[in-house]
Amino acid sequence: MPLNELGAPQLLTEPQTETMNDASSTLLTDLYQLTMLQAYFLEGMDEIASFELFVRKLPRERNFLIAAGLEQAVQFLENLRITEAECEWLAETGQFRPEFIDFLAKLRFTGDVDALPEGTVFFPDEPIIRVTAPLPQAQLVETRLINLIQFQTMIASKAARCVLAAPDKLLVDFGLRRAHGAEAGLLGARACYIAGYSGSSNVLAAQRFGIPMYGTMAHSYVMAHDDERTAFERFACSQPDDIVLLIDTYDTETAAEKVVELAPALARQGHSIKAVRLDSGDLVTLSKRVRTILDRGGLTSTGIFASGDLDEHAIERLLAADAPIDGFGVGTRMITSVDAPYLNCAYKLQEYAGKPRRKYSQGKQTWPGCKQVFRHYQADGSLHHDLLTLVSDRQDGEPLLQTVMQSGRRLAAAEPLQTVRERVASQIEQLPEALRAIDRKADYRVEYGLALKALAERMAATRHAAMRG
Amino acid sequence: MPLNELGAPQLLTEPQTETMNDASSTLLTDLYQLTMLQAYFLEGMDEIASFELFVRKLPRERNFLIAAGLEQAVQFLENLRITEAECEWLAETGQFRPEFIDFLAKLRFTGDVDALPEGTVFFPDEPIIRVTAPLPQAQLVETRLINLIQFQTMIASKAARCVLAAPDKLLVDFGLRRAHGAEAGLLGARACYIAGYSGSSNVLAAQRFGIPMYGTMAHSYVMAHDDERTAFERFACSQPDDIVLLIDTYDTETAAEKVVELAPALARQGHSIKAVRLDSGDLVTLSKRVRTILDRGGLTSTGIFASGDLDEHAIERLLAADAPIDGFGVGTRMITSVDAPYLNCAYKLQEYAGKPRRKYSQGKQTWPGCKQVFRHYQADGSLHHDLLTLVSDRQDGEPLLQTVMQSGRRLAAAEPLQTVRERVASQIEQLPEALRAIDRKADYRVEYGLALKALAERMAATRHAAMRG
Repeated sequence: MPLNELGAPQLLTEPQTETMNDASSTLLTDLYQLTMLQAYFLEGMDEIASFELFVRKLPRERNFLIAAGLEQAVQFLENLRITEAECEWLAETGQFRPEFIDFLAKLRFTGDVDALPEGTVFFPDEPIIRVTAPLPQAQLVETRLINLIQFQTMIASKAARCVLAAPDKLLVDFGLRRAHGAEAGLLGARACYIAGYSGSSNVLAAQRFGIPMYGTMAHSYVMAHDDERTAFERFACSQPDDIVLLIDTYDTETAAEKVVELAPALARQGHSIKAVRLDSGDLVTLSKRVRTILDRGGLTSTGIFASGDLDEHAIERLLAADAPIDGFGVGTRMITSVDAPYLNCAYKLQEYAGKPRRKYSQGKQTWPGCKQVFRHYQADGSLHHDLLTLVSDRQDGEPLLQTVMQSGRRLAAAEPLQTVRERVASQIEQLPEALRAIDRKADYRVEYGLALKALAERMAATRHAAMRG
Repeated sequence: MPLNELGAPQLLTEPQTETMNDASSTLLTDLYQLTMLQAYFLEGMDEIASFELFVRKLPRERNFLIAAGLEQAVQFLENLRITEAECEWLAETGQFRPEFIDFLAKLRFTGDVDALPEGTVFFPDEPIIRVTAPLPQAQLVETRLINLIQFQTMIASKAARCVLAAPDKLLVDFGLRRAHGAEAGLLGARACYIAGYSGSSNVLAAQRFGIPMYGTMAHSYVMAHDDERTAFERFACSQPDDIVLLIDTYDTETAAEKVVELAPALARQGHSIKAVRLDSGDLVTLSKRVRTILDRGGLTSTGIFASGDLDEHAIERLLAADAPIDGFGVGTRMITSVDAPYLNCAYKLQEYAGKPRRKYSQGKQTWPGCKQVFRHYQADGSLHHDLLTLVSDRQDGEPLLQTVMQSGRRLAAAEPLQTVRERVASQIEQLPEALRAIDRKADYRVEYGLALKALAERMAATRHAAMRG
């Protein structure tokens, strides 16, 4: 197999195995970015390029998407640099020329960025972010920009569906343990919060982003004690407040009775039981029986919190069956976006050196040029349609993409997450009813501007020139 | 809604928004771990506990799993500590008592770890890792241990299926951009490599783990040039070797003809074209036509590399249709484990203070006690069955779990990835034929030891005591 040797460099350095704390390394990219950059460097190709990141097609179970991850993208661009140690390592691979390594060592992001504000509802073909910079810079950042923006957008978009399924309930992200690594857990918590979750179990997300944190207790706590009653009592006495007792370790209804029996003694010590948690079994039946037990025992203000394999469909079914559940811990199926664990998205060259560019690969043609989205509303404030056209083709409607970086510097401080949450809430409010359904497909009207269509047609002609070349 | 206030602390500090480089923070955990630890601290519960991490049930499309992530888990345990700044932040949340914060500041991992060596084939109910430590330590590490081990295990297990589908082909991880964040991209590349991939496009994975890195070129490179021929020529001249040209930006067959035309001139300059890459369209038809064009043009040693929505099923179909493809770039569907984006796994308390423990939640009962797996082989060296029983119940067969940490220290240096790769290769070789099929479900025989069954039965009796308590 000739290919078995393809591109495998002689690695001269010992692999480093220290604990990873390098999400910010610029080497977190695909080799071909560096390979192309070396070619651009040698060719002297450093004119201005514009790339746009967009979603080609919605997943089957999504009627809309919510833009998220821009703040992390801006931070990445602001801090873009390849360290001296990284340059030395690159030199040792033998794949790069010394003058190119020198170029990499000095590389910073000096370009402009236009983007949808985080929390904006958007649709296929609409640019989420446009990077306009000297070609090598705009190319190099592709991998990490997609990595940051597609994940948070995917999670925020699914989380918004959970909020639609349970608008008045407490929703808490429980996903960290089954998230795909550390950053997925951390940024997933952020994306859920943006979309309207009340908070997360993730302590680091609370520290980093100021997201409210929530916690209950695990089965292991109950199991570590010789009996369940002692476990409940001791746990209640150890917490300052917000006591939530997990009642399904042995038998849920028996445990609910114990909670009722314990409540008066705990109340005398100043402890009230905020909620009980169910994590297994038939949640409709159990929540009704437990509600009856609690109410009969006078614990009418003790809530019921449920968890275990939940997503927007399960939550909707529970509430449709009148399960008296006040809050949901949503973990695995949410943090993995199990029904759509990736978005069909691309970061494509739209313009280089003042000329629009277009890709023609079978089934993957793109709309050329730098684009803007103009949003049109109904009289009642709800969304009517979007017009996608060239930036240069100014049209009526609200332009959605805003300039967030110029010459490599951000134009404004990070938006408070509260602002982003409010944007999501108001935009979801403005969505046509059909698009808000979580179990019925509905399409939003996105029109393509005449100027955009005309350019695409002109370029279909020039395609032949490029091909002939 | 009383629950809407549940557990939401007053966050006194400004959220920190710096670039994340804190995968190693011990705050990357669920709040309930800290809540339970505070209770254990106040109760003086710090006797030895054993927890085991295991998979309850295989995903529908998996006949076996490959253990991966142990090295990162050991590093996490070795470095476990909550920093002074983190303790201060925890104190400011108002949820923890000062004496407990002091306890956290001094907390280190001092326990023992037994685990399946990375690369071991395993099945449901078999412990991947057992942590034996004072209860607070063993509890605290749950979230991150699952986060590290379930992800890499999931990816290695799917990657092994790709290797089974294309045993003699070049397989390269292209997943970084659609990975769920930075760490998923990095550890996913590692997991693919362990499972037998040739390498990854991920530069950081190459630097960190010594994984061979591979790269080609992007459509944007072709599009940034005025014509495709110039793009090919310039790219070829900029690379030291291992030139791979992407030929589907405009028209694949036309581009293949151009490669043939360019080859003699490039050869005179000392450049040979290692391969062409197809990224769209009908890969069976296109690869055959391109092979014909290349062969007719004398480029018989130029390979064909394919990418685009690939997974083990797509690869198997391509090879079954005799597509003359020498290597595959496998990205999105692999790095997200799209057909099974999580494993149904749990980290459960098996023993505390010398007594075995068991969970009885509906549908989630566990096997109690500390367990070992004894593997039995056929005469020809292939796997026959596993016997799962208590550690104390010594049986014939190869014991799979090995002690990797004692008193908080690792017993051996990190295994070279090459060793782990060889283990995977030999274990896959030993799998019964039926389990190696990627499109047919087959079950491996896991027997439960008499001692284990007897303990489970004894505990079913004591359950009633715990419930009555």
